[in-house]
Amino acid sequence: MFDRFTRGELHLNRIEAFSDGVFAIIVTLLVLELRVPVLPHHAGVTELRNSLFDLAPKFLSWLISFIIVCKFWLNHHHIFSLARHANYALVWMNSLFLMTQSFIPFPTALIGEYPRNPLAVSVFGCVMAVNTLLFMLLHRYILRNLMKPELKGTEDPHILAKSLVGPLSYLAGVATAWFSIEAAFVVYMLTPLWFITPAAPRPVNSTKQC
Amino acid sequence: MFDRFTRGELHLNRIEAFSDGVFAIIVTLLVLELRVPVLPHHAGVTELRNSLFDLAPKFLSWLISFIIVCKFWLNHHHIFSLARHANYALVWMNSLFLMTQSFIPFPTALIGEYPRNPLAVSVFGCVMAVNTLLFMLLHRYILRNLMKPELKGTEDPHILAKSLVGPLSYLAGVATAWFSIEAAFVVYMLTPLWFITPAAPRPVNSTKQC
Amino acid sequence: MFDRFTRGELHLNRIEAFSDGVFAIIVTLLVLELRVPVLPHHAGVTELRNSLFDLAPKFLSWLISFIIVCKFWLNHHHIFSLARHANYALVWMNSLFLMTQSFIPFPTALIGEYPRNPLAVSVFGCVMAVNTLLFMLLHRYILRNLMKPELKGTEDPHILAKSLVGPLSYLAGVATAWFSIEAAFVVYMLTPLWFITPAAPRPVNSTKQC
Amino acid sequence: MFDRFTRGELHLNRIEAFSDGVFAIIVTLLVLELRVPVLPHHAGVTELRNSLFDLAPKFLSWLISFIIVCKFWLNHHHIFSLARHANYALVWMNSLFLMTQSFIPFPTALIGEYPRNPLAVSVFGCVMAVNTLLFMLLHRYILRNLMKPELKGTEDPHILAKSLVGPLSYLAGVATAWFSIEAAFVVYMLTPLWFITPAAPRPVNSTKQC
Repeated sequence: MFDRFTRGELHLNRIEAFSDGVFAIIVTLLVLELRVPVLPHHAGVTELRNSLFDLAPKFLSWLISFIIVCKFWLNHHHIFSLARHANYALVWMNSLFLMTQSFIPFPTALIGEYPRNPLAVSVFGCVMAVNTLLFMLLHRYILRNLMKPELKGTEDPHILAKSLVGPLSYLAGVATAWFSIEAAFVVYMLTPLWFITPAAPRPVNSTKQC
Repeated sequence: MFDRFTRGELHLNRIEAFSDGVFAIIVTLLVLELRVPVLPHHAGVTELRNSLFDLAPKFLSWLISFIIVCKFWLNHHHIFSLARHANYALVWMNSLFLMTQSFIPFPTALIGEYPRNPLAVSVFGCVMAVNTLLFMLLHRYILRNLMKPELKGTEDPHILAKSLVGPLSYLAGVATAWFSIEAAFVVYMLTPLWFITPAAPRPVNSTKQC
Repeated sequence: MFDRFTRGELHLNRIEAFSDGVFAIIVTLLVLELRVPVLPHHAGVTELRNSLFDLAPKFLSWLISFIIVCKFWLNHHHIFSLARHANYALVWMNSLFLMTQSFIPFPTALIGEYPRNPLAVSVFGCVMAVNTLLFMLLHRYILRNLMKPELKGTEDPHILAKSLVGPLSYLAGVATAWFSIEAAFVVYMLTPLWFITPAAPRPVNSTKQC
Repeated sequence: MFDRFTRGELHLNRIEAFSDGVFAIIVTLLVLELRVPVLPHHAGVTELRNSLFDLAPKFLSWLISFIIVCKFWLNHHHIFSLARHANYALVWMNSLFLMTQSFIPFPTALIGEYPRNPLAVSVFGCVMAVNTLLFMLLHRYILRNLMKPELKGTEDPHILAKSLVGPLSYLAGVATAWFSIEAAFVVYMLTPLWFITPAAPRPVNSTKQC
């Protein structure tokens, strides 16, 4: 039954093209939430300035989500550079991961619209934690099953355990939201810094990495 | 007159790039239907929670359509890996198929908005049945006219007959919708499992498949 | 001053990637105009059916524009396969062409919304005529300046004159709109058939064409 | 700490694919601001014509932004053709640049909606100045750290100083907006002409440039 998923030796280029398309669209769609304020048509400078300031939570949530998706893109690029090909299991794990990525505009809009509501702020962190867990699943599957032979041993063997810091940090933000909204935003802003670049390869075969 | 369509020896890469772009955009646009609920600005946690629960049919329809489009993408990838090049007939069949794919956000929004209306639920199934039939046409055309010589014989000769299970299953969902909405949703969720991975190649030349 | 535009020997792949991205997004965005009808939440089958029928002009305009953009994509693919590289002049002609392509969702929405208004129907035809003229400019520039040496002589020398049938046909539709809306729609539907496939190469060097 | 950013030898193709995707989506999304006017359903030709004329500022802002983004795309293409590979620092600079690019639809909509408001017109110029500065940062980083050895010396050594004309020109538009809206629009339209094509390479190794 599950055998069929280990079949398939797909070139990575179409999977990467599909994924890159999804990433590119997500980051660009985020801006659609930044709607121009609706004012009387001959509104003056002061009114426009005030209503632009009111958009501050939307700008902030746009910024945070943009950085997070770019961080996922970079790490996605990295782990796919480790794989020798894809099988159907990897394709479907990748699709599920992309599904949760493409969901990101929703919680981003939610905290932009209700920035003082702890439920909205929590939902954002939960979605990011799920994204990170699915990413780790993808990473783990590649490390265990599809690693390029020449790169074996270059990845830190504790990389997955260390990656847990990501979802735990998002979940800390989720809990924090019920006490202090501001603190939760700070946690969400700092979390992508953990894997702002993929971990350095170990010096076994320290040749080119991609 | 129809001769002109068998002309053309197009490389597959631009067709795949165009198709991948369309697939990537479809799956990502689906999330735009998940609109943040409109509440009074300082709405509390309870109100937000309730209105998020009200979105449940939209989340569900988003999920089903996402899985269905990913399944089409994977199978599209597979059948194009069988072709040695494209001619104009294939380009146009592919365009028609992509047209019906790009239509998917409409019935998805329809069942998300009117999940208890049997007509809405039926329309969804009909659209998916048409998509599957156009996909089969594409598959059949490649098998008969554009197969890579070295892959001849690796495809199950009954693959097209077996593929009919897809549209028939969607049409069963269409009929079911008039008796039980819930059962129709279940049928729609189960149907993509039929070709969750492309059929295994026959062991004639069991070398790389893509 | 204009010298700078003939500089540059750009590989075609990034230009094609950018163009394919734009084409893919245009065709997929067209569906966003097909909005789910707004009905009372427990509207019955009859009401939903009637309001879906009311969308007929939108479905029709979506269909026509989808076919037209796919036709442009295919012919774009063809003429770029004739070029040995791109210079900056070609890049900018291509950008202007893509600008008018990306404008297509606007007149499409316009005739979907006001299908009985001759001005709306005329605007649609004018936009398509401008698109075709810019495409011909692109074609002409490649034929005169950037043709692959091995393909010289394979293009019909009268191809540009023959291509004029496209804009003339759209303009005939524009004029027709003021007498009969239905006839104008028919003209718009038939026009893309003129170059539904690129013209056949002449048998000078009848080897591969792309 | 900052060491980690100089690691990584990434192929340029996925970064270019991601960037091209973002550019393509931005230019195509711009059209979404051009909404079909809302009129009584059987509005006549005169009413439709008048309301289309009212859209003139939106058409103009769409046009200006389209040209600006295409100009960035072309110059982005150019500077990436100078680089031998990417490291993580370049990836992040590129992501920040794309973030400000993807922001462009917002100020475009703002001047389309409030074309007579000097604040709206100023914001547009500021966003473009920031975009140009981030682009210059990207350019500078490639010139100093990632230049292909065979292209060394082909770039004008004063290119970055000369590039400053871009942001200065946009900022001149920002200042102008408070005296004359029309003059500011003219400045914004003329500014992209400065780098409408990348600067010519110096004739050190005047071989192919990309």
